[in-house]
Amino acid sequence: MKKLILPLMATLLTTLPALRADEGMWTFDNLPLKLLKEKYNFTPTQEWLDHVRLSAITMGGCSASFVSADGLMLTNHHCGRGQIGSLSTADNDLLTNGFVARTRAEELKTRMTVRVLQQMQNVTEKVNTAVKPGMSASAAEEAKNKALQEAVEEMGKSTGLNCSPVRLYQGGEFWVYGYMAFDDVRLVAAPELQAASFGGHPDNFTFPRHDLDFAIFRVYKDDKPYTPAHYLKWSIDPLKEGDLTFVIGHPGSTNRGMTYNQMLYARDVTSPISVKASERSRSVLLDYGKISPENRRAVLTQLLGVENSLKNGTGYYTALLDEAAMKKVKAREDELRDHVNKRPDLKKEAGQSWEQIDKALASTRTLAPTALMASAAPSSVLSSLRSTVAQIETGNAPQAPRGGAAGGRGGANQPAPRADLELMQLEAWLKDVQATLPAQNDLVKAALNGLSPAQAAKSIVASPMKEESARKSLIDGGKTALATSNDHAVVLARTIYKITTENQKRQADANAIISDHGSRIARARLAVYGKDTYPDATGTLRLTFGPVEGFEANGTIMQPFTTFGGMYDRYIGWGGNEANAHDGMWALPQRWLDKRPNINPDEKLNFSHSVDIIGGNSGSPVINKKGEVVGLIFDGNITMLPGRYYYDENNNRGVSVDARAIIETLDKVMDAKHLVRELIGK
Amino acid sequence: MKKLILPLMATLLTTLPALRADEGMWTFDNLPLKLLKEKYNFTPTQEWLDHVRLSAITMGGCSASFVSADGLMLTNHHCGRGQIGSLSTADNDLLTNGFVARTRAEELKTRMTVRVLQQMQNVTEKVNTAVKPGMSASAAEEAKNKALQEAVEEMGKSTGLNCSPVRLYQGGEFWVYGYMAFDDVRLVAAPELQAASFGGHPDNFTFPRHDLDFAIFRVYKDDKPYTPAHYLKWSIDPLKEGDLTFVIGHPGSTNRGMTYNQMLYARDVTSPISVKASERSRSVLLDYGKISPENRRAVLTQLLGVENSLKNGTGYYTALLDEAAMKKVKAREDELRDHVNKRPDLKKEAGQSWEQIDKALASTRTLAPTALMASAAPSSVLSSLRSTVAQIETGNAPQAPRGGAAGGRGGANQPAPRADLELMQLEAWLKDVQATLPAQNDLVKAALNGLSPAQAAKSIVASPMKEESARKSLIDGGKTALATSNDHAVVLARTIYKITTENQKRQADANAIISDHGSRIARARLAVYGKDTYPDATGTLRLTFGPVEGFEANGTIMQPFTTFGGMYDRYIGWGGNEANAHDGMWALPQRWLDKRPNINPDEKLNFSHSVDIIGGNSGSPVINKKGEVVGLIFDGNITMLPGRYYYDENNNRGVSVDARAIIETLDKVMDAKHLVRELIGK
Repeated sequence: MKKLILPLMATLLTTLPALRADEGMWTFDNLPLKLLKEKYNFTPTQEWLDHVRLSAITMGGCSASFVSADGLMLTNHHCGRGQIGSLSTADNDLLTNGFVARTRAEELKTRMTVRVLQQMQNVTEKVNTAVKPGMSASAAEEAKNKALQEAVEEMGKSTGLNCSPVRLYQGGEFWVYGYMAFDDVRLVAAPELQAASFGGHPDNFTFPRHDLDFAIFRVYKDDKPYTPAHYLKWSIDPLKEGDLTFVIGHPGSTNRGMTYNQMLYARDVTSPISVKASERSRSVLLDYGKISPENRRAVLTQLLGVENSLKNGTGYYTALLDEAAMKKVKAREDELRDHVNKRPDLKKEAGQSWEQIDKALASTRTLAPTALMASAAPSSVLSSLRSTVAQIETGNAPQAPRGGAAGGRGGANQPAPRADLELMQLEAWLKDVQATLPAQNDLVKAALNGLSPAQAAKSIVASPMKEESARKSLIDGGKTALATSNDHAVVLARTIYKITTENQKRQADANAIISDHGSRIARARLAVYGKDTYPDATGTLRLTFGPVEGFEANGTIMQPFTTFGGMYDRYIGWGGNEANAHDGMWALPQRWLDKRPNINPDEKLNFSHSVDIIGGNSGSPVINKKGEVVGLIFDGNITMLPGRYYYDENNNRGVSVDARAIIETLDKVMDAKHLVRELIGK
Repeated sequence: MKKLILPLMATLLTTLPALRADEGMWTFDNLPLKLLKEKYNFTPTQEWLDHVRLSAITMGGCSASFVSADGLMLTNHHCGRGQIGSLSTADNDLLTNGFVARTRAEELKTRMTVRVLQQMQNVTEKVNTAVKPGMSASAAEEAKNKALQEAVEEMGKSTGLNCSPVRLYQGGEFWVYGYMAFDDVRLVAAPELQAASFGGHPDNFTFPRHDLDFAIFRVYKDDKPYTPAHYLKWSIDPLKEGDLTFVIGHPGSTNRGMTYNQMLYARDVTSPISVKASERSRSVLLDYGKISPENRRAVLTQLLGVENSLKNGTGYYTALLDEAAMKKVKAREDELRDHVNKRPDLKKEAGQSWEQIDKALASTRTLAPTALMASAAPSSVLSSLRSTVAQIETGNAPQAPRGGAAGGRGGANQPAPRADLELMQLEAWLKDVQATLPAQNDLVKAALNGLSPAQAAKSIVASPMKEESARKSLIDGGKTALATSNDHAVVLARTIYKITTENQKRQADANAIISDHGSRIARARLAVYGKDTYPDATGTLRLTFGPVEGFEANGTIMQPFTTFGGMYDRYIGWGGNEANAHDGMWALPQRWLDKRPNINPDEKLNFSHSVDIIGGNSGSPVINKKGEVVGLIFDGNITMLPGRYYYDENNNRGVSVDARAIIETLDKVMDAKHLVRELIGK
């Protein structure tokens, strides 16, 4: 990692307003209306709030919104990518070519289910009263989960809605959210993948950006276009620097409510191993790709996925390593602890909670690194043996693996296993096991078995246990056969099972304590500061807001908007399609060259704004004070990633597709004037 | 200062060659021909070398080159800015409007003198033999300077050339360089300042960049265009990513030969005070500008100058604070010291040199911060009094100040003093004096005189000594009047004089030792490593080389080229001229909007390349293997600034105007087809 120190560029921002705090992923029951009024002189009416809430859609892992009377749904291309890929045929790869349904009959049915939040019910009291005096942390946790599940079922029965439990403020509040669900969602229009993700992995989490990362679907009900009671109108007002924007969406997960020591645990115990694992995968895939162009092609998608994880993971890890920022986290916690210690009621409730969480962390700290290394073992024979060992040890046949959720960035289908690649991955893992853990560690002994990493890798993949019949014999031999086997792979799988099972037990015990005391701290925080605060992201509906503005980076200030002209600048700046620089990351589909004379180079393409978002917000509508669509969230800048742990108002920015760019693309490039009419009525 | 950690983006550079070391500002007597052959399969002939050397021009502080048979000289707009400004009339501001001479008669005579290097003579032996055994460091230093000056005069007499002393390798070598001088240089063409420095101060030291930072002059001799024996032809080959480039120019000053402890001295003693002084100036100018738009306008140029110093100074300071990089500097020094200790001859010569330099540094360390603060006192009455005090103490009338050199970035004329601004500056300085130095320090006592900074500032500016007559009376009263005056300003000026004089004495003594032992270390380095190394920049002619390539920044990889389309993208991205964002830093002259339809948006504008440059290289021609002009150095990226102390091959890039952009601008915007013809022959 390379540290860059920016010059003191606060200089340059002198025409911007003084430091603001556009922080917060607010729930709709607790919006910062006073702040909005004071800072932006804006007070949304209840109608405005209901309207935008009922126009918002969750895809599970991504966000979306209704944008026409006939149920058009706007989201990111990367949120629909898996579906768009699946709808491709041998003749027509929709990721390469893009897609427009010329008529409603041509709209292509996907396998998506989407939901719209209708009701929110606070069941905190009911859940908390399920905890009886004298219960252990684990028993209390179980009782709360049971009570919450009952509340979900009750609300489901009484409303007919699709209901889900929601745990806010580290368990300081419990809610049930009721949704309308739609399982007939059809693809209407999508640009080419190359235009949607122009700049590819390198540009991921950055701005200035030039991505048409949108896709349009239509929600159907009873085989007819659904006509939602609420949908967002398209803005025709030109968005400018400084304009206030709102984002309505479903941020997935943040850890800002963690204690300082939990963050240090992540910094010192889990994050380094996770970053290291991504680095290892990436290094092996790169080496493998160097062997032949065919190899390179075969692992490219996997490589992009790993590089995305690495960029993400490094961003999070970086946040934890930032001493100045972490000092602020600590100072805020110290302040809360002072308050708690001064109020007898809070001291009784939460005075010991930080220490209790520290103890829980200590109980998992020794084993966690070994368990994390153990569960990362990359080998198909070990994977198969893990099920076998579990079956022998528990007596239960393994469950079939669950299907993955729709959407998710870079989450391409796992490629068919390649024996040569697997051997390289295994050897790299063995090297890291050897380098990371002490020689006397059980995992090291079982994994290496006295051999070098290269020899050990060969020995493991040579195991007869790669045959299903051999594993079946092992199952037939039962615990005795398992315990006495000398096969390298079996010994290793047995050790991994033992380590991960013990670790899971310790983690579960620790989590019960962390959950209990985390919620005590959260309740204390609410008691001290009131509800002028927001809960960590939980994949549920939130509102965040802030102005369109650039930020300081690379020694200068980033412009708030990019244009189509800028997209061509980057295309040419990298040498065009002929140069194929960096595997064609900044290449353009031929249509974008052919139709360039039609495109207004000055039309706005993407913009940067101070909104507080995180993964899961992808596809969220960006709206103005009128509640009209001005953009579409698809990413953040690189300095948004620390937002997992804390908010940095100077550097955290959301990155959106400008609504005008979607119209320009539909109109000038995709020849979809019928959709332009449906969206903007002309 | 804000630290950013980039994700592990080495990832992305996998299509680039492995780490290279395109380091070095090489002298023409010692070029790395073996390296050039091995890495780039290129061996320049002696003819090639003579040709490019004799085409290169020094402007003193900037570089330039001959680019036509009739003496056209190409350099940066910012190198000719002072001259262009001076040639403006009340009717025609050439900085605002740009300029093209339609005929040779219209070419405007400047007050520039430029020089072309003809001969280089190594006089090391002669200089060193001037040092006699038993001489003190100061005496030896004086003897060497005298011998070097004699060599300069001798060569001047024997060749008729304009000769200058050159001290390379910290005094490890001494040379005399003989130049042809030209004092008739006329302005031929310059774009508007706004196009030449698009992005202004924020974009200074950054890339991607969109600056037409060029100006064209013509060298005259005997009132006729000079026809140089050598000039660089204009390239018509398209420059691409990866192409090898050479830069022939005059880098001003680097400190890479400093000992590690000298760098720590800069880090701990001088750099912080210098950065602090820039911050203080900037803060006052910003506050002053907030009082009224008229104030803002009045100090804008001064503010840009200060912000440039701050950006520079912060970049240098940052380099010294970079622990990982400094570890490498230390390791390299330790290796050399090991070699020295193992070789008796070197140990005798330089074995004690590091300790001797440390002692010299220690002798100035206590007083230096006070002296630096003292000499930064911002007040016209103190300035005047400083001359008065010097005259009384030395008995000599002060010399008139010398005129500044041509060129230099941001070095605008000092504005007329403003009493209200001066008061603010003085108060800010007094606050820093109070905050930085101990209460018992002589400067603190004299400056504050028991008052608050605000009161003290008023008391100083109220001094009757602002009148020349009062100062004359003081002079008439001589040392007694000076020593007994109770006037606040006189007491302070007297103290400042005492401190700075004592400091100058200590510095001079220390510098003699540092010079002696610095040269011993440099000679030891040459003895150990041979001449596979280059001397620190000294404002003399150097060659550096490296390929066109981007770099990692802002979470992604910067494209190697920008285009005219990108310039319009940034213009629009900031809201255009109407928005006037950041004082119009990204505004464009009306002509660039009117003539936009003529301009090819895909023509290359600027590019980034791995060359080792520093201030003074501005205006250097960038040439290809054929020795033809492909570009014009005008800046580096923000991560080039540590190059003052060490070279970082991953992040250090030069930033150049593409030669094609100059032709496009002359042809399509400036209607200067006659110059296009003169440059490219069509």
